[in-house]
Amino acid sequence: MKTLTNQKITEGDYILLCLKQRKTYMVKVEAGKSFHTHKGFVKFDDLIGRDYGQIVKSSMGIDFVALKPLLRDYIMKCARQTQITYPKDIALIVMFSGIGPGSQVVEAGTGTGALTASVAFYIKPAGKVHSYEIREEFIKTAERNLTRAGLFDFADLKHKDITLGIDETEVDSVILDLATPWLVVPHAYDALRPCGTIVSFSPTIDQVVKTAEALQENRFVDVETIECLMRGMQVERGKTRPQTLMTAHTGYITFARKALKPEQQAESTTA
Amino acid sequence: MKTLTNQKITEGDYILLCLKQRKTYMVKVEAGKSFHTHKGFVKFDDLIGRDYGQIVKSSMGIDFVALKPLLRDYIMKCARQTQITYPKDIALIVMFSGIGPGSQVVEAGTGTGALTASVAFYIKPAGKVHSYEIREEFIKTAERNLTRAGLFDFADLKHKDITLGIDETEVDSVILDLATPWLVVPHAYDALRPCGTIVSFSPTIDQVVKTAEALQENRFVDVETIECLMRGMQVERGKTRPQTLMTAHTGYITFARKALKPEQQAESTTA
Amino acid sequence: MKTLTNQKITEGDYILLCLKQRKTYMVKVEAGKSFHTHKGFVKFDDLIGRDYGQIVKSSMGIDFVALKPLLRDYIMKCARQTQITYPKDIALIVMFSGIGPGSQVVEAGTGTGALTASVAFYIKPAGKVHSYEIREEFIKTAERNLTRAGLFDFADLKHKDITLGIDETEVDSVILDLATPWLVVPHAYDALRPCGTIVSFSPTIDQVVKTAEALQENRFVDVETIECLMRGMQVERGKTRPQTLMTAHTGYITFARKALKPEQQAESTTA
Amino acid sequence: MKTLTNQKITEGDYILLCLKQRKTYMVKVEAGKSFHTHKGFVKFDDLIGRDYGQIVKSSMGIDFVALKPLLRDYIMKCARQTQITYPKDIALIVMFSGIGPGSQVVEAGTGTGALTASVAFYIKPAGKVHSYEIREEFIKTAERNLTRAGLFDFADLKHKDITLGIDETEVDSVILDLATPWLVVPHAYDALRPCGTIVSFSPTIDQVVKTAEALQENRFVDVETIECLMRGMQVERGKTRPQTLMTAHTGYITFARKALKPEQQAESTTA
Repeated sequence: MKTLTNQKITEGDYILLCLKQRKTYMVKVEAGKSFHTHKGFVKFDDLIGRDYGQIVKSSMGIDFVALKPLLRDYIMKCARQTQITYPKDIALIVMFSGIGPGSQVVEAGTGTGALTASVAFYIKPAGKVHSYEIREEFIKTAERNLTRAGLFDFADLKHKDITLGIDETEVDSVILDLATPWLVVPHAYDALRPCGTIVSFSPTIDQVVKTAEALQENRFVDVETIECLMRGMQVERGKTRPQTLMTAHTGYITFARKALKPEQQAESTTA
Repeated sequence: MKTLTNQKITEGDYILLCLKQRKTYMVKVEAGKSFHTHKGFVKFDDLIGRDYGQIVKSSMGIDFVALKPLLRDYIMKCARQTQITYPKDIALIVMFSGIGPGSQVVEAGTGTGALTASVAFYIKPAGKVHSYEIREEFIKTAERNLTRAGLFDFADLKHKDITLGIDETEVDSVILDLATPWLVVPHAYDALRPCGTIVSFSPTIDQVVKTAEALQENRFVDVETIECLMRGMQVERGKTRPQTLMTAHTGYITFARKALKPEQQAESTTA
Repeated sequence: MKTLTNQKITEGDYILLCLKQRKTYMVKVEAGKSFHTHKGFVKFDDLIGRDYGQIVKSSMGIDFVALKPLLRDYIMKCARQTQITYPKDIALIVMFSGIGPGSQVVEAGTGTGALTASVAFYIKPAGKVHSYEIREEFIKTAERNLTRAGLFDFADLKHKDITLGIDETEVDSVILDLATPWLVVPHAYDALRPCGTIVSFSPTIDQVVKTAEALQENRFVDVETIECLMRGMQVERGKTRPQTLMTAHTGYITFARKALKPEQQAESTTA
Repeated sequence: MKTLTNQKITEGDYILLCLKQRKTYMVKVEAGKSFHTHKGFVKFDDLIGRDYGQIVKSSMGIDFVALKPLLRDYIMKCARQTQITYPKDIALIVMFSGIGPGSQVVEAGTGTGALTASVAFYIKPAGKVHSYEIREEFIKTAERNLTRAGLFDFADLKHKDITLGIDETEVDSVILDLATPWLVVPHAYDALRPCGTIVSFSPTIDQVVKTAEALQENRFVDVETIECLMRGMQVERGKTRPQTLMTAHTGYITFARKALKPEQQAESTTA
């Protein structure tokens, strides 16, 4: 996520070492050190100063490719500590939210920063994501993860309880991945510009029902809930088949748009 | 997709008229005219000059909300004429491709421009999407759809056969939604920067197998194929359940990243 | 479902006329009459007295195959009038219930008899299905459907409200497809033999939660809820892919087994 | 699967010890011995002579329920050694095949006997399943599994290669779970009665395509391929949600029915 002109592997970079198909390791490049795997070790000095995309041999003679991490890789790297929000869900949350370069976004809870980093990635450089989190230790983790991905400048991490209120106004979207999204809905209404979107991610049906009700009570329209199942394929001529195991459930995504209240309409008409 | 400061409904705008939950119509605002539905007609003159998010009554006294369309709405609007690429697929294609603000992207085929518009939306304002299409009539349709969404400036529509070659070099991603993606793979390798991504969307297993083989033969690594199923939920206290019907299949998404060839590595080392 | 030795098409039989792949019609054979389709008409007199599996030409020269209906065909035929229980669900309900030839089963509500016929099919000839229904008009429909499938002898249709009690005792399984299964759970406990099973089919989450709670409160063990998604494949060399549309939801299947109460254990020990 | 009148736990029985929800162990009852778990041990002498459904306390004071295994439990128990055919697939295979009490069935390959036992269960007591297997060691395993489930009398295990031919004729269904089902299709046609069914279970797309082609070339009609996804639910008031992991793929089920050849029709007409 560094500038695209910097394509040389540099000390301090996080790189993705890719061993054959589908086995990747995200590691930090440190001069004089090595990365050890069951297929031998790779010396970082063999990589520093060379182009990304390079193939390097381990001590056991096995090929590794040194790749530049994508947003998706950073998401998977962030995801270890808390509830996992998968790339598939983040992709849909971003699409449903309607955000893009320049958007102003409120998000909560920050957690390890996977969703915060993703929002920052798509709204940069002119936009900003204001991310609320009540657990202080997570803010530090998120700051580290955002910095690692080169996205910290586009985020505003706030140690505040979003169920008590939102500081920002006229934002384009409010994105929620927390235990009680329905408590945030009235604040989200006030924080959003007209037609602004709210997107909530929740693992249980009960959270979905309460959130959908709060949305309808608060003049949100076009309320919709979906779930997304992603299944991998094993592709090989003559042996192609879906993979044996999959994630059966991460969470439901609920979406809505802000309509104006009658009083706002009146103001709007006279303005 | 117009600038966010313009929040007044203006003649010539495309707006989304939303009738209760989940029933929306995308229509062009024309002074002196009306939009007719089975719930009565809405006069555009009642909307022009007022804020987006406004509630307006039809001739039958039914409430409609005048919403500003999101990218997702433009995608659905584009999608009518050719094979449908759904928002869920576009969301995943964008995430897998790793593109964001400023990315340089090659894309084919243009079709009605749904995928082109989506790429343009996420790479604007500094990036560019170079979109190839062999059927001239589609280029006109795509131009109209891109213009309507305010995204035409970020696209370069090309009346060319991408299976014969790609003009651009050092691009960040090549995104394919056409019948024979495997024929494009060698050209994509040459067009991509190191670690650049390729993402291909195909409805049939046979296309997937041929494309995955071409990717492996052309030094792409981390090759992966997935499919995504999206299911809607009917959310209502005491009656919540998944929806009765769903789209069972749109297509498979195949992803890979470019590793360097040995000769490129040599150059890179000596450079 | 008639005896297998009768393989000649006979007046009064219900046959399945199959036009090419996947287009089938269930019709009653009537001497002197014809069956009309958009591919011409088929004279029943061309079929009577001939073997099942016969190919017959319509008046337009199109081939139809005269097939003997399977249980699955009768289920689809029954299913038109009420909530649909699909063959996939019935297959799983039967498997989970543990019933087979000779089983004694209580079932409700009868509805059009699709589930009743299926249970009758698998428990015949020594078993019996006691089916409860409160709406008298459905009992007549079910009787007709069961008779048509040759399964009426194995069913006992009862015009009674199963939420008020079950007459039978020591049955092997209680199978429920009705609006308030949780009200039947205590009666089911009394009606079942030890280790007997209960299987409930419900479209909504709320029904599932109430039923699972009632099962746990009533000493049922091994309580499990699943849903089943069936997706068709379009199979054609070089073009194989999943079908475009599918049924996204019919209902959830909840299963449990009866454990003994402490007092029953005591009796059992002293016996 | 022993006769239903024997409801007392007897030495030599296989029982299902159920520890709270969803954790079950299938064990053989042996006088003087115990079954050890991480929740303490259960003495079989505490169970022998008592009713099924009994609750017994382990040495650590934890409740276990002694259940009589169902067909589904035997299937899971059989399934350990070879490719797994899940209860959901067996349920659909049985439903699609149209078999029931009294049916004559050919089946291959036997494997550990899970599918053989299931067919035997549904066609007993008057029917028979003729099961082909080329690997002698599996025949012994299957015999043991069928005997354990009380179903050996209804099966005829044959050490023969079904791709070379089928001995039986006029059977109701041919059910295949082997690597090259397409090689069996012509033999299946000869073995089946008119309108008889063939059902094939295969994990890969390539097997499905070859089998569907063989079916169409051999005058089978109503050819259909489906896959079935089963997802578990975690049901708990206020916390209900689908389970986190699921089996993403076991295999595709292909179904067809035998139509008569023209020469058979001629014979049939003159008969």
